[in-house]
Amino acid sequence: MKVLWVFAHPEPRSFNGSLRDFGVRRLEAAGHEVRQSDLYAMRWKAVADGDDFLDPSVSERLVYATASFNGFKSGTQTPDIAAEQEKLKWADAIIFQFPLWWFSVPAILKGWFDRVLAAGWAYRVPDPTTAGRSLRYGDGNLKGRRGLIITTVGGSEKSLGPRGVGGDIHDHLVPVNYGVLWYTGVAPLPAHVIYEANRVDAETYLKIERSLAARLDGLFTDAPIPYRTQSGGDYDNDLVLKPGLEGDNRGFAIRQKTDL
Amino acid sequence: MKVLWVFAHPEPRSFNGSLRDFGVRRLEAAGHEVRQSDLYAMRWKAVADGDDFLDPSVSERLVYATASFNGFKSGTQTPDIAAEQEKLKWADAIIFQFPLWWFSVPAILKGWFDRVLAAGWAYRVPDPTTAGRSLRYGDGNLKGRRGLIITTVGGSEKSLGPRGVGGDIHDHLVPVNYGVLWYTGVAPLPAHVIYEANRVDAETYLKIERSLAARLDGLFTDAPIPYRTQSGGDYDNDLVLKPGLEGDNRGFAIRQKTDL
Repeated sequence: MKVLWVFAHPEPRSFNGSLRDFGVRRLEAAGHEVRQSDLYAMRWKAVADGDDFLDPSVSERLVYATASFNGFKSGTQTPDIAAEQEKLKWADAIIFQFPLWWFSVPAILKGWFDRVLAAGWAYRVPDPTTAGRSLRYGDGNLKGRRGLIITTVGGSEKSLGPRGVGGDIHDHLVPVNYGVLWYTGVAPLPAHVIYEANRVDAETYLKIERSLAARLDGLFTDAPIPYRTQSGGDYDNDLVLKPGLEGDNRGFAIRQKTDL
Repeated sequence: MKVLWVFAHPEPRSFNGSLRDFGVRRLEAAGHEVRQSDLYAMRWKAVADGDDFLDPSVSERLVYATASFNGFKSGTQTPDIAAEQEKLKWADAIIFQFPLWWFSVPAILKGWFDRVLAAGWAYRVPDPTTAGRSLRYGDGNLKGRRGLIITTVGGSEKSLGPRGVGGDIHDHLVPVNYGVLWYTGVAPLPAHVIYEANRVDAETYLKIERSLAARLDGLFTDAPIPYRTQSGGDYDNDLVLKPGLEGDNRGFAIRQKTDL
């Protein structure tokens, strides 16, 4: 299968860099084809602005989503954006690897979301069955792909667990898993989180490699997070979850299926 | 009082730009002093990398947090970073105004968090009472300040409410309210969310201004989100919430006090 690995760490000689090299080798050894977007190495432009479009008139009064819609449709986005879109179209799975900074992705990766995921393609895709509604949350042009977050954090598993002071790390990743991947139709697997990544000795490093290997081996077979689709009948006309469907789930998790 | 208004929208002639102008005037009319960081107008550098430090040796093998710690301490950060830190030290309150892009802040604002909030100042501040622990979650060098998110979203209040398909918008803002503001000691107010911001007629616009005015009038008097502090006795030695304290709260909200 085809895998796009998006890497957002400034230092290739880092722990993250070693894991990326290991992971790419692992996937290739299993017969997958891997393409990389090493955002720092590419000097990826993070800031979404009028310079993203070849038509200078967009900047007279910039509405980014409109400029993105027109630029995607007419082929007048800058080549760096179009090249990333081609990689994503090509891929069967996409991996985002990053250190968690301020409970989120580094700015350079946020800028990849902001600029690559164009209007009319990744969002604002008209739903042919319902006027005024878009294909999203499990549906859309990127459907059929899988996604996986690999992230390193300084905190412990307990402090970033269900009752930890830091909040549940998997909650903090909802904006990416649900808001970026699932929103555009990509089915995310549970994130692979590497805790206490600031203090890794040689023995621990080998354990971390083995654990990552197991996740990569399951990239096309593990069960994705069972998010509900927007169009599957679970939401009413106001896009509110119908009463009673949540089962024992509470909070954000009511958006996951319970009958598995 | 002194207010720092950080604005992250690419177009000053936008709905967001009008609200910013209105908001700044409102605060000044009430006698507050306002300084602005208009990130697009400043052409703010979003990407955290070795160029953020005057000492070129940091890039031999960049560990960003270490470089940030040393750069802050020795005054060898780039002047753009130091200038923003001075504004934040000066301020009694900080406002982040941005359009919600992909369930989060635009990359240019994420890059402000990544670069301005230096190690040894905004995080990794040793707790003098507990070896190996940092002052954070309600404590630290930025304590005593208030924070307020003002954000525009395309979706409806229902679709971004507690049972909406999009998830509860206030959950999606936890990485900023809790992970950036509260983490560094700043007490965040509940976010001010402006729904369906893509279709605002003149009458609706006036309502939106009135509603924003009320929030700005309460900037120094409204109750902040009642997050628990790390050091207040609610967490055990593993930084896990002690049994029974959550009351009826579930999910992330167990980190808020219930006895109010």
